[in-house]
Amino acid sequence: ASFTPISGGVCAPKGFRAHGVKCGIKDPNSAKLDLALIYSEKPCVSSGLFTRNQIKAAPVKLSQAHLEAEIPKHGILANSGNANAAAGPDALDRALRLAEIAAGELGIEAPQLLVASTGIIGKPMPMDRIEPQIPAAVAGLNDDGSDQAAEAIMTSDTRPKQVALEVQIDGKPVRIGGIAKGAGMIRPDMATMLAFITTDADISQEALDSATRDGNGESFNRITVDGDMSTNDTVFVLANGEAGNSRIESGSAAAEEFGAALREVMLKLAKMLVSDGERVTKFVTITVSGAKTDACAKAAAEAVGNSNLVKSSWNGNDPNWGRVIHALGYSGAEIVEEKTDIGFGGLSAAINGVTAETPIEDLVAVVSEPEFTIEINLNLGDSSYVVYASDLSPEYVDFNRQEYAAMRAKMLEEG
Amino acid sequence: ASFTPISGGVCAPKGFRAHGVKCGIKDPNSAKLDLALIYSEKPCVSSGLFTRNQIKAAPVKLSQAHLEAEIPKHGILANSGNANAAAGPDALDRALRLAEIAAGELGIEAPQLLVASTGIIGKPMPMDRIEPQIPAAVAGLNDDGSDQAAEAIMTSDTRPKQVALEVQIDGKPVRIGGIAKGAGMIRPDMATMLAFITTDADISQEALDSATRDGNGESFNRITVDGDMSTNDTVFVLANGEAGNSRIESGSAAAEEFGAALREVMLKLAKMLVSDGERVTKFVTITVSGAKTDACAKAAAEAVGNSNLVKSSWNGNDPNWGRVIHALGYSGAEIVEEKTDIGFGGLSAAINGVTAETPIEDLVAVVSEPEFTIEINLNLGDSSYVVYASDLSPEYVDFNRQEYAAMRAKMLEEG
Repeated sequence: ASFTPISGGVCAPKGFRAHGVKCGIKDPNSAKLDLALIYSEKPCVSSGLFTRNQIKAAPVKLSQAHLEAEIPKHGILANSGNANAAAGPDALDRALRLAEIAAGELGIEAPQLLVASTGIIGKPMPMDRIEPQIPAAVAGLNDDGSDQAAEAIMTSDTRPKQVALEVQIDGKPVRIGGIAKGAGMIRPDMATMLAFITTDADISQEALDSATRDGNGESFNRITVDGDMSTNDTVFVLANGEAGNSRIESGSAAAEEFGAALREVMLKLAKMLVSDGERVTKFVTITVSGAKTDACAKAAAEAVGNSNLVKSSWNGNDPNWGRVIHALGYSGAEIVEEKTDIGFGGLSAAINGVTAETPIEDLVAVVSEPEFTIEINLNLGDSSYVVYASDLSPEYVDFNRQEYAAMRAKMLEEG
Repeated sequence: ASFTPISGGVCAPKGFRAHGVKCGIKDPNSAKLDLALIYSEKPCVSSGLFTRNQIKAAPVKLSQAHLEAEIPKHGILANSGNANAAAGPDALDRALRLAEIAAGELGIEAPQLLVASTGIIGKPMPMDRIEPQIPAAVAGLNDDGSDQAAEAIMTSDTRPKQVALEVQIDGKPVRIGGIAKGAGMIRPDMATMLAFITTDADISQEALDSATRDGNGESFNRITVDGDMSTNDTVFVLANGEAGNSRIESGSAAAEEFGAALREVMLKLAKMLVSDGERVTKFVTITVSGAKTDACAKAAAEAVGNSNLVKSSWNGNDPNWGRVIHALGYSGAEIVEEKTDIGFGGLSAAINGVTAETPIEDLVAVVSEPEFTIEINLNLGDSSYVVYASDLSPEYVDFNRQEYAAMRAKMLEEG
């Protein structure tokens, strides 16, 4: 099936409206939107995936409970500026209270809303600033509201991230749209990743869960590392069935087509997250092939994508395969130096563990581009894995030592 | 037992001489020493520990073979400027040839020498520059040569690292001395750590192996992470018995005293490595206590010590306990948010997972110092672990993107 790119983000699928309003959560004087609402009048089948960090923010715990309640969902309420994480014993009550107020305005039950938060951790949610704006968020819901919602969830992101596409399933046009935010994507330490995806597909719970899990594994999980997720990372998918297709059931051809389309939306959002990482100048696709096992392929690709020294070399336009082979050596993947091939942008840098004698200028030209590929063949088996990585810049560290500290100090002062 | 600090480095113990000469391995026009020799006329009991990286440099492989040969050792030959790693099929022959030439000059067998290399990887050793200088290294061996040897193994280190102490064992003064080099100590990705330690103790092979292993586990392994070592990391300990003490046997009180002294030498060198890490401005001692298991304590401390975001916050004088608890959350250690206490320099920052309300200025004052401590109590058990870490500075990244690339380009050009 082919996908047609369309506009409209989370409002592209039939029956979804959205809006974003300003509460001043971060800064009462800022004009930035910081509360997003996405809503479908028709009840939705929904799936959610969350951080594996043992420290989970209150909205993560609340959304997990709401998903377990197994009643149809109608929407997502999300804020930026405060992560509501490590925020004391009242954190969960506060998250619930916001959901209850919004649900009251919408005429639904609180467990029919999913919630998410992103921003500073360790500080109570400023309820007095958020509560009064919830009615405006509900009243403002509109068919073109994806822009505002995408903006309202941004933190250190430099631009909103949206995508939508249409795919023919069962002879009917089915639409999938999404918004996302990230930013500290070097290795998502504390930067929260949020992705909210809507679709008008008619799909069973089982088929949606499976498509969400599989799509996530080939997109958002390719830009992070198992176990190294933020306290707030969240992916939601809501399906309201308004496309009028025959219900998509697990294991069917339609489920496969839908899954491919959902994966495409997730992958586009994931790549936007990397490209808009804090002070990022490079987008690098690392492909490991010839690994002995799938686990080896993954470990090898992630070690290269997470090495500070490898990432610094990209920032300096240095095609440094020595640092790459070194990262492979400690990755935990089985590797044999004398069998390892490394290339940049299709040009051989090392063959069988020694220099390929490709002129250094040619390799430098490849890594000087804002986007390039690294090909690693371990020549030990048939497994492969792809990871999407950014470089590491002095400006990233400077941002995280200075701007964040300043922002945090300001927020604490205003607290 | 108390230790008396003394001068002399690896030449402080009786019967050890050393020297360093200039071969121009990195740069034929440089005045930097780059070949070190340490020698004891009396044969030595010796222990060696090596990188766990699967990619091992040729000198590591050769030294492993020489240690397995189980004939008494007389010394260590080490160079900087070229790591002799990923350097092609002739790399091992080249390492052996250098050992053979030095052994010939010294009148011993090649397997009686241990060898080490540090510097650029992926490039053949410039034998024509090294071989002619070996006779001068041998001829220059002297009782005050530790300075030159320490300088000759430096790469991006800003200063040589030496230590020596005297301890009374069995009523006899026993001396232990050492030199080391490191530099990229943020997380020793490719920066090689070398440590060469000499002692005039009379000690059995088993007791020396055990003291070396234990000391290493509480020093050099506290500044690194399992599996994340360079291709060349090496620790050697040589004991020539000239102190005239009764032979130290495993399990004895003397073995314990010697072990404590060796650990002290290793710990001092390890701390020097962190403090002289590339563009480092902070030395941070992270103590995790109250962990459920030893493995949990280690994982928790290492996750905090290796987090880019935690380390960036130190560089910005930001007492950011939110980033600390987040790193604990993904560390793999069992943690319960509501039980976790975090302090800086003895001041509480978080108690039971929420802010301790200590004035922010007080915490900022702690982390603004060049050295401070972080105390983490997981309150789940009795295990503890200590890690020594540096901050992460924009200058570190800049160094590794620019200066290294420039250095490397120059070397390749000269190659």
